[in-house]
Amino acid sequence: MKTAIYPGSFDPITLGHLNIIKRAANCFDKLIVCVMYNMEKNTGLFSPSERADLIRRVTMGVPNVEVDVSSDLLTDYARAKGATVVVQGLRAVSDFDKEFQMALINRRLNPQLDTMFLTASEKYMYLSSSAIKELAHYGVDLSGWVPWEIIDDVEQKMKELKGALPAF
Amino acid sequence: MKTAIYPGSFDPITLGHLNIIKRAANCFDKLIVCVMYNMEKNTGLFSPSERADLIRRVTMGVPNVEVDVSSDLLTDYARAKGATVVVQGLRAVSDFDKEFQMALINRRLNPQLDTMFLTASEKYMYLSSSAIKELAHYGVDLSGWVPWEIIDDVEQKMKELKGALPAF
Amino acid sequence: MKTAIYPGSFDPITLGHLNIIKRAANCFDKLIVCVMYNMEKNTGLFSPSERADLIRRVTMGVPNVEVDVSSDLLTDYARAKGATVVVQGLRAVSDFDKEFQMALINRRLNPQLDTMFLTASEKYMYLSSSAIKELAHYGVDLSGWVPWEIIDDVEQKMKELKGALPAF
Amino acid sequence: MKTAIYPGSFDPITLGHLNIIKRAANCFDKLIVCVMYNMEKNTGLFSPSERADLIRRVTMGVPNVEVDVSSDLLTDYARAKGATVVVQGLRAVSDFDKEFQMALINRRLNPQLDTMFLTASEKYMYLSSSAIKELAHYGVDLSGWVPWEIIDDVEQKMKELKGALPAF
Amino acid sequence: MKTAIYPGSFDPITLGHLNIIKRAANCFDKLIVCVMYNMEKNTGLFSPSERADLIRRVTMGVPNVEVDVSSDLLTDYARAKGATVVVQGLRAVSDFDKEFQMALINRRLNPQLDTMFLTASEKYMYLSSSAIKELAHYGVDLSGWVPWEIIDDVEQKMKELKGALPAF
Amino acid sequence: MKTAIYPGSFDPITLGHLNIIKRAANCFDKLIVCVMYNMEKNTGLFSPSERADLIRRVTMGVPNVEVDVSSDLLTDYARAKGATVVVQGLRAVSDFDKEFQMALINRRLNPQLDTMFLTASEKYMYLSSSAIKELAHYGVDLSGWVPWEIIDDVEQKMKELKGALPAF
Repeated sequence: MKTAIYPGSFDPITLGHLNIIKRAANCFDKLIVCVMYNMEKNTGLFSPSERADLIRRVTMGVPNVEVDVSSDLLTDYARAKGATVVVQGLRAVSDFDKEFQMALINRRLNPQLDTMFLTASEKYMYLSSSAIKELAHYGVDLSGWVPWEIIDDVEQKMKELKGALPAF
Repeated sequence: MKTAIYPGSFDPITLGHLNIIKRAANCFDKLIVCVMYNMEKNTGLFSPSERADLIRRVTMGVPNVEVDVSSDLLTDYARAKGATVVVQGLRAVSDFDKEFQMALINRRLNPQLDTMFLTASEKYMYLSSSAIKELAHYGVDLSGWVPWEIIDDVEQKMKELKGALPAF
Repeated sequence: MKTAIYPGSFDPITLGHLNIIKRAANCFDKLIVCVMYNMEKNTGLFSPSERADLIRRVTMGVPNVEVDVSSDLLTDYARAKGATVVVQGLRAVSDFDKEFQMALINRRLNPQLDTMFLTASEKYMYLSSSAIKELAHYGVDLSGWVPWEIIDDVEQKMKELKGALPAF
Repeated sequence: MKTAIYPGSFDPITLGHLNIIKRAANCFDKLIVCVMYNMEKNTGLFSPSERADLIRRVTMGVPNVEVDVSSDLLTDYARAKGATVVVQGLRAVSDFDKEFQMALINRRLNPQLDTMFLTASEKYMYLSSSAIKELAHYGVDLSGWVPWEIIDDVEQKMKELKGALPAF
Repeated sequence: MKTAIYPGSFDPITLGHLNIIKRAANCFDKLIVCVMYNMEKNTGLFSPSERADLIRRVTMGVPNVEVDVSSDLLTDYARAKGATVVVQGLRAVSDFDKEFQMALINRRLNPQLDTMFLTASEKYMYLSSSAIKELAHYGVDLSGWVPWEIIDDVEQKMKELKGALPAF
Repeated sequence: MKTAIYPGSFDPITLGHLNIIKRAANCFDKLIVCVMYNMEKNTGLFSPSERADLIRRVTMGVPNVEVDVSSDLLTDYARAKGATVVVQGLRAVSDFDKEFQMALINRRLNPQLDTMFLTASEKYMYLSSSAIKELAHYGVDLSGWVPWEIIDDVEQKMKELKGALPAF
């Protein structure tokens, strides 16, 4: 059985992330979507566990997906889970270098762990969590950008934090 | 069972290709390495079936690898083989755009077929079949560039074609 | 009155080209779509005048578009036409360098002529005339890739040239 | 009448910006140079209205240029102004991805609004507002980098903020 | 006699930096490795003079290398030292634009000063000081990433700062 | 004494090449400008020895420059000449990948040989030999693109070959 991990900050999950999740789940027996966070960096719109809850809600219909939260080093986490593949989405050439570097570092830290890249669907090529937060800040309707099940959560959270939020 | 296809011209197979093959074979239940060719373009150092023979020789130890030759459209070929994933190696940013375009076209032609990219190992990042032919032309020792099992074949073929070979 | 030129080989025009034409026509008072060719390079699926005919057919509904054919240097052609802007579509980062270089050369040859770039629509980001010829070669249905008005022409032309066509 | 918008932070305006303004003003009937700012991010060397004043001073000789300040979403601002084109300067490949993403998002938010890119003049290809602030910090003579009319303002402002200025 | 400068933040020096130093020292008569810092930005794992000490320790065996610390503008520093070349390492395409811009600015500030780029060795292509700090944070063994002579220093410093360290 | 090699096809030498030659000659004790050619590829506007003659004519004033012609493998040639550095000009990001690959291959073939890159001057960033041949084909005045000493030669050669020249 092949287990893959799709790590990220998912703050919040976008339709682009969801598209990668569905396609990756189709390629492997099991896909763990893992919200990775750094305990010493408390920034973010949603807390890590809130982010995981949002992901769970929108991936309920995908049977072989498991959602998790971790502050471990990705390669340690993968080893503990018995995963052999890391999945990453690539949107544009500027993603490429950073992800390439991460993939090489991770393979060095854990030679049994390989990184596979999926290209973003052209419909979601311009989507990022930070773009969504920027748009939400201006009151733009988020349908078509984030899964409909979580639009209210994002808009509600933006309202709460407005004024209190540092530059994102 | 997940079947993946690793298509290419493999003229000839390099240590970089072999590295991708071994890693991709580790990620999927079955990997078909397919020499794709265009019947109307007869260029190449080796014929498509010769290239497949060289690949077979160097992948004999990888149990879930199958080697094939085809002049079909990749998406048609994948459908016929029941494959759901195309594997591509990415060496550098200049590969990125072309492969990205191919991945988007292929997903449009066959929505059940997804492309996953593996980054080349840093050791083989600079390897390409055309670089190898260029080096062979200058009589450079090919060990460390192509699998040792096929070095004689490449050197022999270069000798035969010398003078008769157009610019590569 | 601002006149812009959209130069290219358009062999044949794609839905991506048509998208750029409509958007550019919306930005300037007049848009000249010009099939540029080099008299000494007779390659191509369609002849320059055939390409212009295809463009005329699919842009009939756009009032401020004029279609032309020229083998002149682009900057000379623009001067003769009184155009002050060259329009180019950008699909991907690999287009960028070449187009950037052309834009700098053209501004040097004719300081009154500036180049403006439009990003391809995400739907057509992966479309190119050569990809279309490749797909037509494999008998892929071209609707969704080229304007419907010219699909028969492309398929007919491919049939005629099959066997006689060198590698494209 | 075609109205274009050239949005930016312009903190402060450089000779590169001025070059884009003059060329864009030549391509459209009216060009609005708009200092866009985020009310919740108070960083910056000059305040938004100070930046607009500097722009006004150096564009006085360009008849069809209007200078404005706004904290609205760009697409909303453009709609209110009846603009159909956003103009952006492209300096290098690293600008490309971010601007490309913005252009796609903006077209989605306002399908009537298109983004056109002008390549920076080779003379100003390496100019950015942050490079200028870095150089001013070291006391470098700014002529040849920012319009001469505002050199004193930049040097004066740098002196005032020295010590009080966080890392830029 | 040709003197070259290799400037950087070196916080801390990596095996990738050391590789560039040895190769650059082989190309010029004298190489000054200079820790450049901005007095108003006190961030960093090690202080500038600590960083220089670490560099001295690992370059002791390279005879024509001198280590220095400076907060001057690079072009002023080079002039004072009589250096005619700045050496930079290039790891990936994303380094390229920034370094290219710096090289053009520096040549303009000091036409006698030229920048030469060395490509990172493929073994160290993925190495950066910030990646190393990230890995040290997770307790990863640093051998193979930083010179063995300074591993204890980095691990010790990380322990001291843990908790007190802002996000890096 | 440090000897560097600047290899290329130089068909013909441009002002961009000349700019790199002068700057590289300033960085090393001796610079060999070498026209590299492949005996089996007879394409080109000028023959290799004609190209070398043109280079000699325009570099007469640079004392430490030597001009040569070779069909050897670059690393073999460098070894025979006792050179330790290869110099390459970088114009744009698209040059980067290819040159990076060549640099890694060459260092592997000859570990004593390192490649250093100089960024093109912004004035010559868009210059290439093939652009010049394209412009000469259209009768564009070549001053400002190639050294004045060789303009007549290029124009004369273009006239001779007109009609006989395949697509360049």
